[in-house]
Amino acid sequence: MKSLFHTIALIGKYKSPEISESLVALAAFLQRHNLEVLIEEGAAAAMEPHHYTAASYETIGQHADLAVILGGDGTLLNAARCLAEFDVPLVGVNQGRLGFMTDISRESMLDSMTALLTGKFSREQRFLLDAEVLRNGERAYHALTLNDVVINKGDAGRLIELEVKVDDELIHILRADGLIISTPTGSTAYALSANGPILHPSVAGIAIVPLCPHALSNRPITVSDHSTISVTLLPPHEARIHFDGQTRFDARGGDVVRIKRSLYAITLLHPPGYSYFAMLREKLHWSATPRN
Amino acid sequence: MKSLFHTIALIGKYKSPEISESLVALAAFLQRHNLEVLIEEGAAAAMEPHHYTAASYETIGQHADLAVILGGDGTLLNAARCLAEFDVPLVGVNQGRLGFMTDISRESMLDSMTALLTGKFSREQRFLLDAEVLRNGERAYHALTLNDVVINKGDAGRLIELEVKVDDELIHILRADGLIISTPTGSTAYALSANGPILHPSVAGIAIVPLCPHALSNRPITVSDHSTISVTLLPPHEARIHFDGQTRFDARGGDVVRIKRSLYAITLLHPPGYSYFAMLREKLHWSATPRN
Amino acid sequence: MKSLFHTIALIGKYKSPEISESLVALAAFLQRHNLEVLIEEGAAAAMEPHHYTAASYETIGQHADLAVILGGDGTLLNAARCLAEFDVPLVGVNQGRLGFMTDISRESMLDSMTALLTGKFSREQRFLLDAEVLRNGERAYHALTLNDVVINKGDAGRLIELEVKVDDELIHILRADGLIISTPTGSTAYALSANGPILHPSVAGIAIVPLCPHALSNRPITVSDHSTISVTLLPPHEARIHFDGQTRFDARGGDVVRIKRSLYAITLLHPPGYSYFAMLREKLHWSATPRN
Amino acid sequence: MKSLFHTIALIGKYKSPEISESLVALAAFLQRHNLEVLIEEGAAAAMEPHHYTAASYETIGQHADLAVILGGDGTLLNAARCLAEFDVPLVGVNQGRLGFMTDISRESMLDSMTALLTGKFSREQRFLLDAEVLRNGERAYHALTLNDVVINKGDAGRLIELEVKVDDELIHILRADGLIISTPTGSTAYALSANGPILHPSVAGIAIVPLCPHALSNRPITVSDHSTISVTLLPPHEARIHFDGQTRFDARGGDVVRIKRSLYAITLLHPPGYSYFAMLREKLHWSATPRN
Repeated sequence: MKSLFHTIALIGKYKSPEISESLVALAAFLQRHNLEVLIEEGAAAAMEPHHYTAASYETIGQHADLAVILGGDGTLLNAARCLAEFDVPLVGVNQGRLGFMTDISRESMLDSMTALLTGKFSREQRFLLDAEVLRNGERAYHALTLNDVVINKGDAGRLIELEVKVDDELIHILRADGLIISTPTGSTAYALSANGPILHPSVAGIAIVPLCPHALSNRPITVSDHSTISVTLLPPHEARIHFDGQTRFDARGGDVVRIKRSLYAITLLHPPGYSYFAMLREKLHWSATPRN
Repeated sequence: MKSLFHTIALIGKYKSPEISESLVALAAFLQRHNLEVLIEEGAAAAMEPHHYTAASYETIGQHADLAVILGGDGTLLNAARCLAEFDVPLVGVNQGRLGFMTDISRESMLDSMTALLTGKFSREQRFLLDAEVLRNGERAYHALTLNDVVINKGDAGRLIELEVKVDDELIHILRADGLIISTPTGSTAYALSANGPILHPSVAGIAIVPLCPHALSNRPITVSDHSTISVTLLPPHEARIHFDGQTRFDARGGDVVRIKRSLYAITLLHPPGYSYFAMLREKLHWSATPRN
Repeated sequence: MKSLFHTIALIGKYKSPEISESLVALAAFLQRHNLEVLIEEGAAAAMEPHHYTAASYETIGQHADLAVILGGDGTLLNAARCLAEFDVPLVGVNQGRLGFMTDISRESMLDSMTALLTGKFSREQRFLLDAEVLRNGERAYHALTLNDVVINKGDAGRLIELEVKVDDELIHILRADGLIISTPTGSTAYALSANGPILHPSVAGIAIVPLCPHALSNRPITVSDHSTISVTLLPPHEARIHFDGQTRFDARGGDVVRIKRSLYAITLLHPPGYSYFAMLREKLHWSATPRN
Repeated sequence: MKSLFHTIALIGKYKSPEISESLVALAAFLQRHNLEVLIEEGAAAAMEPHHYTAASYETIGQHADLAVILGGDGTLLNAARCLAEFDVPLVGVNQGRLGFMTDISRESMLDSMTALLTGKFSREQRFLLDAEVLRNGERAYHALTLNDVVINKGDAGRLIELEVKVDDELIHILRADGLIISTPTGSTAYALSANGPILHPSVAGIAIVPLCPHALSNRPITVSDHSTISVTLLPPHEARIHFDGQTRFDARGGDVVRIKRSLYAITLLHPPGYSYFAMLREKLHWSATPRN
């Protein structure tokens, strides 16, 4: 096999020894084909004793020319953020039910990898959001997200009030449980259960999706990915801000969340035969053929 | 007044003598400023005897450098399609409640026109859809639309089945009352009442919105404006296809509707102070300020 | 076998010879157990030559003490209306995928019938709506419905305006594609795809569900089954009124549709183990067990 | 004036001196008509020195034959629970925008009171829910609610899993942000912003409304008010349970919330001309008259 890729990083679900077996099988397979294998150091530490090279995300970013994620969409989200500033394409292998992004099954892992290594794949760009929280005009927090930024009422039982602007133009004063700012990638995640729109990954838009809005006529709005969205938490409300559901920040009245498209994007590789809509039909239980 | 525009076409709501007074007032105002006035021939015929030049849409397209529409969004939709292939910017004056696109009120007409003529306006592009119906592979109908293409069950009481593809990739077999394919401009029109997403005019996307879908998990999907959407009406169903709600075509089983972004776009001019979101708040009864 | 029922009517899907085999098998089974068999005359005429007694719905209503419907929910809807004024319990055998009401499968037909005949079943009442259309104060049409009354814009492409009252109190002037008035039974049929509420069959309520309402804040409302709902079609609109999706009436501006709970109800028998919610989970693809 | 009521309790919004003026004006008005006035002790303590009788909710429940609430819907909710076991009708005077239940305005307060005292009113019953939390089979918490019981994920950022049963029959295993169990009264409160159904107060049903459910086909279900609803929080999830948004309980995995219609109901009195639907139109910005 003549491989397009030479240094391949393997990244495993956080603290999940159960994927160890897949990791080992995949590493051995790659080594048999004379490819260099890096194992993300967290996953490496969780494995049985082995002779593979453990590597930090930074090392992976600098040296790998492909990263294989073993786990679910959450594992891929985390890896995407860690590798966003590097130019390493990602591919996801799911141990259980296929995810929205982890679209290679455990069973077909070695076959799909063979296909990928020999250039049989499609390539797709997914943009990230760059989010910062400003307190008194100073940056108090910063994060990249591939899915979404969620501002919600946290453990307070009541609604919060948010002033939402796009490029300094007021959208509305929102009274709601919260607000989701989502990429097309995130549009099939949490935002979808809040009645947000499904945006195909090729749409250059950002969805603004209220959570249980007080005004019934309040609807999600999709704006261009050239927009800067600022959300001010109106006093005396407090809120919690979640980034890809994986990190969070406790916000106070007056804090401003400023979100725009990141300069970084990630590249997903899909195995031959991948179809975004087929994945959607499968995940949402849509029928593909007419029936009576 | 030094005007940026020299030949100005006035277009009135179809068969609506009640706008005649506004037409006459505006024409006289423009003439006082030594501007050339063309009156669309339909509107001209409905006016009291007058000395203005009546002109076809084609003449308007070739000679006018601004077209003022007096009427509602429906009048503007029609004018937009008629002038799509020409490069004449449009501005809308509404006699009653402001529309989504006709954003100058009758009262402020002359002031707003003065502002516009002297270059005080913002400019916005709105793309159109190019829709054709194929029967046995031959084009049976063709239309441009600024808002939407609606395929519905017509006067049959029952659902229809549609095979929906994007760039030859199957989205789903839809069992529903129908389907709306909408531009961002149309996203605040009919599509919105069918739970479609609001797309800001700057979003380069096309919304695909099912009408009363049989499968509860069936949701609107927004695809890139580079996509070609084809919808096949599965036999033995019949359907009616509506273009901007203004023209229609009766479709038979097997007919294919093929929709893509038109090469043409129109330019809307907005008076100073125009805000898309302010218009949306007003139309949807969103409050702009917090209240108890 | 000691049967609780002695005269059993078999009712088959309209003009559907493919159910003939099930009909014959079931009739023979019942006859072997010395039960009297009536076959609805429409179904009887479509069968191969046979020696069973053909009977009208009226005869069935007067003589049968159980009616078995072979077909889908549509067949059962029709039989329910025809037998509403009689006191014959109904049970449904579905040839294909189970329906919301036809909950015995073809495979388990004889076993389920054995259980039913010997008293192993649960019994459930479903109320009907009594709907009349008034023109100039005179009754122009009358129907019973088990699912719903649907008033829609028919083949006109545009919205209609309806004045909706409950017990002479105005709910609203609705601008929409139409309106559904639904029983709890109908709440899982067409009304559900229009975002109507699911009402358990034991809820004594009637759902009023707008179809694509123009005002975004317009929502379905459920009123008590003691209410009289009147819907006036405002001129100059025309509309089509559908009763259980099986019969229809063309309405003119000024026509009033008056709907209240019928004095009649039907009784459904369910085989042992039947669960309304299990049926709902199955039909709506809800998972019953947690998964990762 | 001959009054139907003799002892009238005045209940004011908690810690809100701004209603003091209305309280004093109303008390003086009642006293002028020789009626006995009780002022709820919390409100009494917040007033300027006065000579009215302060009374606990218990005293009010035993002695008053009418209770007037000055405040918003929240104040009325609280009073309703406190007085649920007594048989005192309630009427609400709102200082600001009218509420769903507090339907007398500050301006018309004395006129409306005159009407009410002389028997010009309509009377409406609203049932309450009886909710208890069971931990290891023991009651750990108990509350009455007029609006709703809300189980949500609290300050955890992720979804929770709930097993929802009605009369021991499984509805589903819900993966969601939470779940609302609502009376018809509560159906226009929080449940409505979560897409719950509007139930007219005369409907004998309880709405079960998921908050951001993971499965898109998951919809609110309304069950009969004879039902007992049990919701088990599946380990390892934790949740917070809110009762009318006013009290709360922190739940652990395995806790069961058991909800049924309370034996108690409250009686609301409405001034002449009150219309539930008129209130709804006003609150939801529905137009009552056709417009172009």
